Amino acid sequence: MVGGGEGAFIGGVHRMAARLDGHWDLVAGNFQSDPEKSVAFGLGLGLAPDRAYADFRTMAASEAKRADRIDAASIVTPNSTHHAIAREFLNAGIPVICDKPMTTTLRHAQDLADVAARTGLPFILTHNYSGYPMARQARAMVEAGELGAIRVVQAEYAQDWLAKELPGNKQADWRSDPARAGPGGALGDIATHAFQLAEFVTGLKAETIAADLAAFVPGRRIDDNVNVMLRFNGGAKGMLWASQVATGSVNGLKLRVFGDKGGLEWAQETPETLLFTPLGEQQRILRRGGAGVSASATHATRVPGGHPEGYLEGFAQIYTDAAELIRAHQEKREPNAFAKLAPRVEDGVRGVAFIEAAIASSKADGAWTGLAA
Amino acid sequence: MVGGGEGAFIGGVHRMAARLDGHWDLVAGNFQSDPEKSVAFGLGLGLAPDRAYADFRTMAASEAKRADRIDAASIVTPNSTHHAIAREFLNAGIPVICDKPMTTTLRHAQDLADVAARTGLPFILTHNYSGYPMARQARAMVEAGELGAIRVVQAEYAQDWLAKELPGNKQADWRSDPARAGPGGALGDIATHAFQLAEFVTGLKAETIAADLAAFVPGRRIDDNVNVMLRFNGGAKGMLWASQVATGSVNGLKLRVFGDKGGLEWAQETPETLLFTPLGEQQRILRRGGAGVSASATHATRVPGGHPEGYLEGFAQIYTDAAELIRAHQEKREPNAFAKLAPRVEDGVRGVAFIEAAIASSKADGAWTGLAA
Amino acid sequence: MVGGGEGAFIGGVHRMAARLDGHWDLVAGNFQSDPEKSVAFGLGLGLAPDRAYADFRTMAASEAKRADRIDAASIVTPNSTHHAIAREFLNAGIPVICDKPMTTTLRHAQDLADVAARTGLPFILTHNYSGYPMARQARAMVEAGELGAIRVVQAEYAQDWLAKELPGNKQADWRSDPARAGPGGALGDIATHAFQLAEFVTGLKAETIAADLAAFVPGRRIDDNVNVMLRFNGGAKGMLWASQVATGSVNGLKLRVFGDKGGLEWAQETPETLLFTPLGEQQRILRRGGAGVSASATHATRVPGGHPEGYLEGFAQIYTDAAELIRAHQEKREPNAFAKLAPRVEDGVRGVAFIEAAIASSKADGAWTGLAA
Amino acid sequence: MVGGGEGAFIGGVHRMAARLDGHWDLVAGNFQSDPEKSVAFGLGLGLAPDRAYADFRTMAASEAKRADRIDAASIVTPNSTHHAIAREFLNAGIPVICDKPMTTTLRHAQDLADVAARTGLPFILTHNYSGYPMARQARAMVEAGELGAIRVVQAEYAQDWLAKELPGNKQADWRSDPARAGPGGALGDIATHAFQLAEFVTGLKAETIAADLAAFVPGRRIDDNVNVMLRFNGGAKGMLWASQVATGSVNGLKLRVFGDKGGLEWAQETPETLLFTPLGEQQRILRRGGAGVSASATHATRVPGGHPEGYLEGFAQIYTDAAELIRAHQEKREPNAFAKLAPRVEDGVRGVAFIEAAIASSKADGAWTGLAA
Repeated sequence: MVGGGEGAFIGGVHRMAARLDGHWDLVAGNFQSDPEKSVAFGLGLGLAPDRAYADFRTMAASEAKRADRIDAASIVTPNSTHHAIAREFLNAGIPVICDKPMTTTLRHAQDLADVAARTGLPFILTHNYSGYPMARQARAMVEAGELGAIRVVQAEYAQDWLAKELPGNKQADWRSDPARAGPGGALGDIATHAFQLAEFVTGLKAETIAADLAAFVPGRRIDDNVNVMLRFNGGAKGMLWASQVATGSVNGLKLRVFGDKGGLEWAQETPETLLFTPLGEQQRILRRGGAGVSASATHATRVPGGHPEGYLEGFAQIYTDAAELIRAHQEKREPNAFAKLAPRVEDGVRGVAFIEAAIASSKADGAWTGLAA
Repeated sequence: MVGGGEGAFIGGVHRMAARLDGHWDLVAGNFQSDPEKSVAFGLGLGLAPDRAYADFRTMAASEAKRADRIDAASIVTPNSTHHAIAREFLNAGIPVICDKPMTTTLRHAQDLADVAARTGLPFILTHNYSGYPMARQARAMVEAGELGAIRVVQAEYAQDWLAKELPGNKQADWRSDPARAGPGGALGDIATHAFQLAEFVTGLKAETIAADLAAFVPGRRIDDNVNVMLRFNGGAKGMLWASQVATGSVNGLKLRVFGDKGGLEWAQETPETLLFTPLGEQQRILRRGGAGVSASATHATRVPGGHPEGYLEGFAQIYTDAAELIRAHQEKREPNAFAKLAPRVEDGVRGVAFIEAAIASSKADGAWTGLAA
Repeated sequence: MVGGGEGAFIGGVHRMAARLDGHWDLVAGNFQSDPEKSVAFGLGLGLAPDRAYADFRTMAASEAKRADRIDAASIVTPNSTHHAIAREFLNAGIPVICDKPMTTTLRHAQDLADVAARTGLPFILTHNYSGYPMARQARAMVEAGELGAIRVVQAEYAQDWLAKELPGNKQADWRSDPARAGPGGALGDIATHAFQLAEFVTGLKAETIAADLAAFVPGRRIDDNVNVMLRFNGGAKGMLWASQVATGSVNGLKLRVFGDKGGLEWAQETPETLLFTPLGEQQRILRRGGAGVSASATHATRVPGGHPEGYLEGFAQIYTDAAELIRAHQEKREPNAFAKLAPRVEDGVRGVAFIEAAIASSKADGAWTGLAA
Repeated sequence: MVGGGEGAFIGGVHRMAARLDGHWDLVAGNFQSDPEKSVAFGLGLGLAPDRAYADFRTMAASEAKRADRIDAASIVTPNSTHHAIAREFLNAGIPVICDKPMTTTLRHAQDLADVAARTGLPFILTHNYSGYPMARQARAMVEAGELGAIRVVQAEYAQDWLAKELPGNKQADWRSDPARAGPGGALGDIATHAFQLAEFVTGLKAETIAADLAAFVPGRRIDDNVNVMLRFNGGAKGMLWASQVATGSVNGLKLRVFGDKGGLEWAQETPETLLFTPLGEQQRILRRGGAGVSASATHATRVPGGHPEGYLEGFAQIYTDAAELIRAHQEKREPNAFAKLAPRVEDGVRGVAFIEAAIASSKADGAWTGLAA
């Protein structure tokens, strides 16, 4: 693991998620930019002294030489550092599991895609929300044609934790600093999740978007509210709203998809169910572990329905799928088909292309702007 | 009443709504364009033979001369005819209660506003959703500053009844015929409701909008899906989505408003409650008839909380408020302050301005377009 | 109308409910026990002076003699007076619409049933909750065998308005006074509704019950919390809970029925939907006006699904069905089959038998006690 | 671990739950009654060969002698074997984590309590639902007096997975076999959870109960539906319903508690929120990780609100608390106060006393029966 030291939020999440299904052990890491603190933090986690690294370059080089080298490097640092770190590990021959957004520029994103292609190494992006069983169920239903031709896509991701200034909050701090978070605020942090989920579920690609970004909190340097209209290949239209100032919202990622034969709705805060309505029929509540659920959703399931799985389980699924992808790569075999649902470097490129297009469109007063990847 | 004859939907609703609170009796009408059928329909409703009219001009002229003349003409015909009929009654000195959208052109809308101003007669528009107690509660809370400065407005109105062609359905027929419905489809029929509700609750005015209209059903001549981004006076931003092809949706009008001190959410299909979250505090479920509810919501209430009121009651409220506005006009006194919450001719002008701006913006590929009224 | 004068709650509800569908006009009444106030109240409602009666006996006698006599007497007085008043009107040849519980003793209830049988006059009891379309839908589904053999019935009715003493509240006052309300508190006021709904929907009859009544509020003379276990004919078992001290509850009437083929759930506060799960299949949300809804539910429907109907509409349905039953009686024809779903004198007898059995069981420390009717 | 071998459900859950927070490693086990299969299963889990035991007695004896002996034995076998196994480990000086119900007779339960007392060893019972943060929040609120004096307790646990015979289903098989499950079916399997949760949250003790048990599925030898009325110390009254034939229910554990100052509601299937209504005020939605949440709930929290935690996290909390209780015991110090919220041997005794009282009451036709412990 690179990142995830003292005061970090997502590092601890990655560690729990990796642990849950028993496929990963944390054996090496560089957790903070301060070398001494990083080593101390690693020792505190029980790492062997020679694997509690002071910097990521040494870690990549040292691990590459070990017989018992790490199977993957999990990168959970602020966005602006992903590119250099991921590049280092890929070039050292080590697969990468990287947090999103993948990079802060499309150029960097494409560069990582190129390096991943050149090295042939697995590169998994933790768009964790696509690890939820019922998000995969939604995708399976669209794929199976149960919704017919998709017409309308409504995606949203509403939070309120940045509705006022949070001086001294480490999370708020780096996420609203363009130097570390990249040019997008809510755009990079959460709109990319909504965007990835929309494309993941529908199998469509947004071709052009029209965006109106805003920074409502006084003094905020990057957007905290994102309004986007989308046009997908095949003619579907959509809207995407992401906000960190939506007072009363907690972590409201929600997707609705409407086709000419049926419509569905899934919300991250109630992830166990999915609403589905075949046109002209009664609405149905599909439940994880329940009747009529796809093999791909079952693949992502641990306990029976009614025993709620949640965020950590969905996140764990990405790690579990990553384990399978990496094992298959090591064993030179085709991975389990469902493991391939884990987001990868291409999703990262799409996400950064979305960010850049949204910023460009907003600067051009909402002009429809194509995604450059 | 003008309109609302055989096969009509909204005419029967108006009659029930008018009856519920006991302020109105139906005593005269011209119910259909076919003179004979109109008379027969009126007699079937128990009208006196001399007040079951064959055409609306005769009705306006005859009623104007009677001592027991009607207190108001309720106009429930297809949109394209509202202007001529309303004009006729106003010019005959008879107040008007008119269905929405008020007209099919902004010019006509402004003309009605002018005639209403000139005659000084009450002109109530049945944007019935603003008659719901908890919609009025939302407005009262914004007005009282409980949400602080409004930043974000999310409005939507999702239906699916036009998700496929409905040959022979009288409702679907005229509502998707530009000659009768006007240039907007979902735009005029439902987006205007969402727009009016957003302005009613927030007290803000949308200054410019960017729209992307679509007609998904093959052969449809007017829009059935409406994506709009909005910029309000004072800097708030919003999105509005209206769809008649949102498979699985029934009558999903919903409004969310987020300010720097609090946020609220209200949905027409569960109209008895309103969710309110003061920033950083626990979310609260406000109930009609319950603790902490505004005087304006109580004004619009018939039975205790927990005894659901619904669509007809909300609609009835517009008629009840109209009764008060008209009585006050007759008695040359100031009406009850809460009755003034009923939508009026100005709301009608705004609605048509919204329709025209949305169409213009969509034709200009989503260019931000000002509302011309 | 008898009762429903100044300060009454349910009288106004009856008047709105009677008015909504246009089948009833209020033309005569005795509204309060004080003769002068009663006359004044009637005149205030616009009654002809000779029909604003000072007492109910005069009203029954006078109306019986008129050519334009009332079609029915609606009795909305405190429970203890129902028997004498209903008897008076029936004996005068006038059909009765009576509030519930029908009487305060089973002897009186059976007497009314006898008089109704003897006179052959319609006697409708306003167990209004069985007027809701989706309650009738539930009944239709059980009747059609969609649930299979019923095994388990869970009924509840939770309120909190009597959670503390309400000195000076007229409603609370008479409803917790055994002399006027009868021997049951929550038992008579709300548990009877839950009981009637359970029998109405399932078509079963409770044979024996075991009850534990409590009066939690200091000084309260009749029960405010009712726990009951039930055994139905055919072997189904159930529980019924009614409370007026369930803090946070408003008007929480809810019924769940489980058979060997399917289960359903309906709640009065969200009356437009019904949850249905065929065993081993996906749960379905049935909506009033939506797909797969029974003819009996459609019969009880005014406006399309998604346009919420509520308490007054459900109550109106009883009045509308009563109108049909009484018209059919006048016209000596068979009434519409769905109108016969309105609760009648037999339901009133069952309700009072339930009250008496519950009190007897509770006094006998919860011994299983048969219903005496 | 003892139990949890091939085909078991709860064993795998225990292993994931133990792993999640990083406090436990699985190092020894006897997983199945068949010695060879047990060893093979343990090796498959990666255990050292000398710690994949063929029987639990050997395991207890061998582990007791090791320097690196297990910190606790987790017992996840069918109910009838808990007593002997737990006794064996306690007597070997090894703390026990035991699934519920603790034993199949009250005599055995009391014996275990005696042994635990004699040995002074921690004995944790996995009534996992009390590990949920918001269940602990509920308890904290009652304890803090926010509900005032408790009057009414409504507990329920509804499932439908045994609504028909499931020949060949290993889980259904032993759970409905009195020889292995004990004398209670739904009673032991799920009603005890509801009972424990009710006492855990309210801090009350049920003194007497009246029960009506049923076995609806033809051929079933133990109850599959449990109706109980309860009387608590201090005068509160309650009902408890547990069913495995409630068609359409999945894992519907729900608790409602009503006091004279407030009421609350919590449901296991939506575990992240708790509804709370102070009498006469607006209802509030409390969220895990949100405003106004107790320290005891925060103690049981991993990730921020809006990132759903669920069943495995709640279960993990019991293991995490057990780790603290056992560490504190090893270190001869007072454990963290919140860790003491984990259910222990006394809860096990209460549970079995509840089972025995319910069976006795049901046999005595619902006579009020005291809990013998």
